[in-house]
Amino acid sequence: MDSLRKETRYDVAIIGGGPAGLAAAIYAARGAMSTVIFEKGLVGGQILVTAEVENYPGFEETTSGYFIVEKMKNQALKFKSEIIQEEVRAISPEGLCKIIETNNNIYRTKAVIFCTGAHPRKLLVPGEKRFTGKGVSYCATCDGALYRNKTVAVIGGGDSAVEEALFLTKFAQKVYLIHRRDKLRAVHAIQQKAFNNKKIEIIWDTVVQEIEGDSIIKNLILFNKKESKTTNLAIDGIFIYVGIIPNNDLVESKLDLDPQGFIITDDSRHTNIPGFFAAGDVIHKVLRQVVTAVSDGATAAFSAEKWIEENIDNFPQ
Amino acid sequence: MDSLRKETRYDVAIIGGGPAGLAAAIYAARGAMSTVIFEKGLVGGQILVTAEVENYPGFEETTSGYFIVEKMKNQALKFKSEIIQEEVRAISPEGLCKIIETNNNIYRTKAVIFCTGAHPRKLLVPGEKRFTGKGVSYCATCDGALYRNKTVAVIGGGDSAVEEALFLTKFAQKVYLIHRRDKLRAVHAIQQKAFNNKKIEIIWDTVVQEIEGDSIIKNLILFNKKESKTTNLAIDGIFIYVGIIPNNDLVESKLDLDPQGFIITDDSRHTNIPGFFAAGDVIHKVLRQVVTAVSDGATAAFSAEKWIEENIDNFPQ
Repeated sequence: MDSLRKETRYDVAIIGGGPAGLAAAIYAARGAMSTVIFEKGLVGGQILVTAEVENYPGFEETTSGYFIVEKMKNQALKFKSEIIQEEVRAISPEGLCKIIETNNNIYRTKAVIFCTGAHPRKLLVPGEKRFTGKGVSYCATCDGALYRNKTVAVIGGGDSAVEEALFLTKFAQKVYLIHRRDKLRAVHAIQQKAFNNKKIEIIWDTVVQEIEGDSIIKNLILFNKKESKTTNLAIDGIFIYVGIIPNNDLVESKLDLDPQGFIITDDSRHTNIPGFFAAGDVIHKVLRQVVTAVSDGATAAFSAEKWIEENIDNFPQ
Repeated sequence: MDSLRKETRYDVAIIGGGPAGLAAAIYAARGAMSTVIFEKGLVGGQILVTAEVENYPGFEETTSGYFIVEKMKNQALKFKSEIIQEEVRAISPEGLCKIIETNNNIYRTKAVIFCTGAHPRKLLVPGEKRFTGKGVSYCATCDGALYRNKTVAVIGGGDSAVEEALFLTKFAQKVYLIHRRDKLRAVHAIQQKAFNNKKIEIIWDTVVQEIEGDSIIKNLILFNKKESKTTNLAIDGIFIYVGIIPNNDLVESKLDLDPQGFIITDDSRHTNIPGFFAAGDVIHKVLRQVVTAVSDGATAAFSAEKWIEENIDNFPQ
């Protein structure tokens, strides 16, 4: 059967269509390389679920993640990048080229840029899996409107947790922000907004031990680490923002990773394997933001073009 | 006299108001740090003189450098960053803080981010200085319109040279692209446009030896390196795009630099001196573009905030 499957060729294949992948496509395609993005879900990545973006340079008015990635997508298409909605199953080297297998087809490329992003870390407590979609959520933007005049808990103390707690006050009557430490990690402008918001109550030094309910979520069992005390908290929903995990399944056994599983790249966004580049939230880096993801993507595409020219072929003059 | 001068305090001082500096200001000010940009000229940097920007992710329509930096400037001001139009003369450490002297005032800051950018390299041939502004230009966007139906030469073979040669065909009747090698360094999409443009004639393997004229420029003396032959070329203007030099005057003796004089930073954009960060075209890096400058700036601001918290003071909770 395999021999009947189509094999299409591209210079550059980008795995993942978030901001890093879209920026890589803009630069690669504008550099006259035949370019494809593989995206198994919606083009846009994690930023799609961010209601408000106010710090991507050049967007003076607060806007949505969706608005920004739509523009990036159109820009990539304008330069003739293709976007293929297939899930990549395996990538294997063939000489200096790479064979990419998706659920439907086989592709051959000269360079690959991994922009597979990251996903939310789970609490891994009893009830979390059972009530996911029934009160347990990892996306306030997606599910916040379901909690109009209800009581919700947000778990975490970083930027995402505090920003989403603030966002949820638009709907919920009460938002508990539950954090395992005695101070937040979020930037101070956001902390201050949370402290000033009367709907938000912060519960310090506390972790969730269990999520309880019947057909829907009802109650959290909390544990205060300073007082070694267990309490119950009645809530209608819980939003979990306790960190991110790199989407490295495809490359785990092949590429050098940091202890958390993020891909290690050099300054040109090259990984340890020639012709394999990586960009965005999936790589080891200082700051995970749209502004750094697009920079990584552009740099990876620029480096991939140089690598192809030097190692595989000279483009026609 | 010095004791009478005002000393104003900020958490973060950003030297230079191009895209890197503006992005640093957006991130620093949004992080609730008191932030100032010092800019001796116009806010915007080198991108101000770029007529068309089509690859900054998120700007789907081709736009001007001016349009993008205006938006970034407004964004920085929205988060309460200040912009001071003074020239920084000296920066000296005082304990962990830094004293900044401008032509008018003295400032004290906790962290400094250098975003001083770069400027065009000169040919350093006879006539170049004499005819600057009288036919010798480093900015097609600024001066191109003066050459309607005239004959001009562009010197260089990189992206900037070829892009500006293309831009000049809007005005000039003939554009010679003079390059010292036998192939261009520009990305292939741009090369192809140049090859297809009937107004552009490429002169390979050739350098400019002298620029001649009387009250205005008249003639170039060219030297073909392969044939060891000298020729004359009658032109009305010459646009020089042969590389960039970092604006490192303020820090040359203090910071670690690469052999070309670009500032060396680590992944968090920290230099070798604690509390001194750098971002944008002035640093050693793979790809000099607006998209990488803003990423550097955001990362430097994020790192400066962390450094201040860990080394100078804890912000009030």
